[in-house]
Amino acid sequence: MSQRIKIKALLESDETNIDVTVKGWVRTFRNNQFIALNDGSTNNNVQIVVDFENTDAALLKRITTGAALSVTGTVVPSLGKGQKIDIKAKEIEVLGDSDPEKYPLQPKKHSLEFLREIAHLRFRTNTFGAIFRVRNSLSFAIHQFFQDRGFVYLHTPVITASDAEGAGETFHVTNFDIANPPRTESGEVDYKQDFFGRATNLTVSGQLEGELGAMALSDIYTFGPTFRAENSNTTRHLAEFWMIEPEMAFADITDNMNVAEDLLKYVISYALDKNKEDIEFLSQRLQEEDKQKPQNERQEMTLLEKLQFCLDNNFERLTYTEAIDILKESTPNKKKKFQYPVEGWGTDLQSEHERYLVEKHFKKPVILTDYPKEIKSFYMRQNDDGKTVAAMDILFPGIGEIVGGSQREERLDKLEQRMDEIGIPKDELWWYLDTRRFGACPHAGFGLGFERLVLFVTGMGNIRDVIPFPRFPKNAEF
Amino acid sequence: MSQRIKIKALLESDETNIDVTVKGWVRTFRNNQFIALNDGSTNNNVQIVVDFENTDAALLKRITTGAALSVTGTVVPSLGKGQKIDIKAKEIEVLGDSDPEKYPLQPKKHSLEFLREIAHLRFRTNTFGAIFRVRNSLSFAIHQFFQDRGFVYLHTPVITASDAEGAGETFHVTNFDIANPPRTESGEVDYKQDFFGRATNLTVSGQLEGELGAMALSDIYTFGPTFRAENSNTTRHLAEFWMIEPEMAFADITDNMNVAEDLLKYVISYALDKNKEDIEFLSQRLQEEDKQKPQNERQEMTLLEKLQFCLDNNFERLTYTEAIDILKESTPNKKKKFQYPVEGWGTDLQSEHERYLVEKHFKKPVILTDYPKEIKSFYMRQNDDGKTVAAMDILFPGIGEIVGGSQREERLDKLEQRMDEIGIPKDELWWYLDTRRFGACPHAGFGLGFERLVLFVTGMGNIRDVIPFPRFPKNAEF
Repeated sequence: MSQRIKIKALLESDETNIDVTVKGWVRTFRNNQFIALNDGSTNNNVQIVVDFENTDAALLKRITTGAALSVTGTVVPSLGKGQKIDIKAKEIEVLGDSDPEKYPLQPKKHSLEFLREIAHLRFRTNTFGAIFRVRNSLSFAIHQFFQDRGFVYLHTPVITASDAEGAGETFHVTNFDIANPPRTESGEVDYKQDFFGRATNLTVSGQLEGELGAMALSDIYTFGPTFRAENSNTTRHLAEFWMIEPEMAFADITDNMNVAEDLLKYVISYALDKNKEDIEFLSQRLQEEDKQKPQNERQEMTLLEKLQFCLDNNFERLTYTEAIDILKESTPNKKKKFQYPVEGWGTDLQSEHERYLVEKHFKKPVILTDYPKEIKSFYMRQNDDGKTVAAMDILFPGIGEIVGGSQREERLDKLEQRMDEIGIPKDELWWYLDTRRFGACPHAGFGLGFERLVLFVTGMGNIRDVIPFPRFPKNAEF
Repeated sequence: MSQRIKIKALLESDETNIDVTVKGWVRTFRNNQFIALNDGSTNNNVQIVVDFENTDAALLKRITTGAALSVTGTVVPSLGKGQKIDIKAKEIEVLGDSDPEKYPLQPKKHSLEFLREIAHLRFRTNTFGAIFRVRNSLSFAIHQFFQDRGFVYLHTPVITASDAEGAGETFHVTNFDIANPPRTESGEVDYKQDFFGRATNLTVSGQLEGELGAMALSDIYTFGPTFRAENSNTTRHLAEFWMIEPEMAFADITDNMNVAEDLLKYVISYALDKNKEDIEFLSQRLQEEDKQKPQNERQEMTLLEKLQFCLDNNFERLTYTEAIDILKESTPNKKKKFQYPVEGWGTDLQSEHERYLVEKHFKKPVILTDYPKEIKSFYMRQNDDGKTVAAMDILFPGIGEIVGGSQREERLDKLEQRMDEIGIPKDELWWYLDTRRFGACPHAGFGLGFERLVLFVTGMGNIRDVIPFPRFPKNAEF
């Protein structure tokens, strides 16, 4: 194929009066003369100037929104504003037509709901091009952060026989004909005959396996898909989502908080640097969306300001107990504006409480620590007070919980006692308990919900818009 | 926690006469005096010299293989050979004991089979530490390669309703109680009531969705888990494995081969650079294993030589048709040494044929192109001869197929005709066909089996040893 230059590289160069070939898709074609061409390498289009008087009319008719073109021409200083250069076309080839009567993406504003139904084409819009380039940068920045610090990327299993964490409803994985699974003599499904010789499901977390790696390699992280079969039709939940789970040997809860805060700042900073134009576009988009809202519902900061604010300020760290005190004394609680009134110590925090702390009280990201053990997982390290565990959750404005982590219970007796208390079968987790039998050490880790991070950095409002093909109740299209 | 230095960083520094703290696990403890401590950051241990005369006997007894220690001491020039420095211990704390009567990993050589049964602990051996550090580097190098070239990392869905590719047996994913799924009036399983409102399974490939991204972003890649429910109990197959699938718009089969060859060389070179000691260790390991074999079964090259050879030589490129001619005329074919004799054009190549081409005939990696359309997938671009498709497979010594790819059929009529011929339902793939309706363009891509790459670079013989927790028939432990 003839060498082409990507539009991003072309627009970053100042050279004019050279001949280049670009390839991409038509966004608009105005006055039979100006093609806005985009190839996905950047949010910006290059303008192709067509010598329409000397161009075949049949060819001109085929230059429609969505068509794929190869264009060779001369780079010239731009006639219009905003862009430094145009391409004066010498040769235009239509590689793939796009019937304007049938092409679903017209050159106008479509609703996000409509675009979700044509998720196979929404990559071709400014908004989704920007989102998925930002998502890409965030992914890579996560790897870069951990690699720079000597963490080993560990692929923990997706199919698992243990649902011991009890983190929620799981999807079953089976090779059986579901209409007619083999049965034992007593009529139960005979999982011994299933592919793995036992009942299996999709993982809800790679943490337990991650700990096994950390107990030898010191620092590991996972970055893989996780699954919840919860019937949650919200803007914050997906049935299939990606999670990052670092696990660190010889680390306590303070180390854990430091790494999580550094990670979040690093990846936000990376995206701001690599995807400036995309984030500026998304920031602008959000401001326009905001204008449609009543004054009191509008954001105090633009997206760009919010991201910068996150970088410039330390996250507020306080205990659950301190947070409860603040909430109890808060105006909305006293005025009974909370749907769930905060009455005392021990209850789980609701989204409205988290948002109050982050958005109203501290006006910055918050790390809450030392939650009551009853509302947290069995593997979290028990504090000396006998009531709390060394948990830490990071709450972000507009997002709520973006990170959940803890120091892990490394003491075998305490861990087994807690498992007994809440009925987690120890024999299923023999391998997990082995790490407490042989060379246990203080260790800690956390889970970062990747889509929630992308939501935050792109300023989007619905988690279904920040993953290419969202999976949620009644939807597995594409 | 007190600041510690990782052993890798310590051994890379030349500084002596400073005090440091290291933390890790005991590999061996000789003569009540010399601890070999490893923290997973490197294959090398640091030697701790214990002043046993002035150390509590009770403490000495607790320094056993597998125990987790924190050691503070002075860095001194090494007494032994191989290592430049030792640590003269001032303070030793046992963070976690390891009962030598019960710890499964004794300081001796264990079989790989045994270690597979204790996969939760095998990270603590030299061999598996090296393997998983190399795996980590290969993962990151893949991201780095594509990021440097402007590819967008795309997370394609794991749960999917389309099994249209027909790439093999899939696992079912369901939220039903398998013992008693809801039925329609006619007695069939009523998938409308399942979580996604239809029957779903685990993806066998992200390619089709990847193409959707490429048709807007130009260059994308996936790197995620894929699944095959095939009852293959071999050293080359897993039920759950990771795959890298780049997809490039405006690219043909030659571009495809160039990118694949560049990628493989880049990541091998990266691992050789970053993991020199690990690969040297694995190379040594393989040589020792080789010594147990009869002369004629031994490798001609060491692992290090084989990897370097791969970097220094162009992969041999030839068509399937040319390969068949070579195989027909080959000595093993004439002497009827092949289990499957090569009789003529049109048959699929068996592993023995691939190995002959790569290991005996060309003695280097081989790219085979232009296979008969009957033995390849429906989406591959049909060549003008009417018989072959623009497929390309890369074959590696000792591994066989490591990459499979093709230029994709971008012409709607040809694609639909082929789907009709082999009975692939077009309505299920409406979204895939849409990319051929609206702005189609020549494009190409391939799939790289990640574990096969790790096998090649580590020189291991069984794919179950290069993924942390392998999934295969009758096994989903950990």
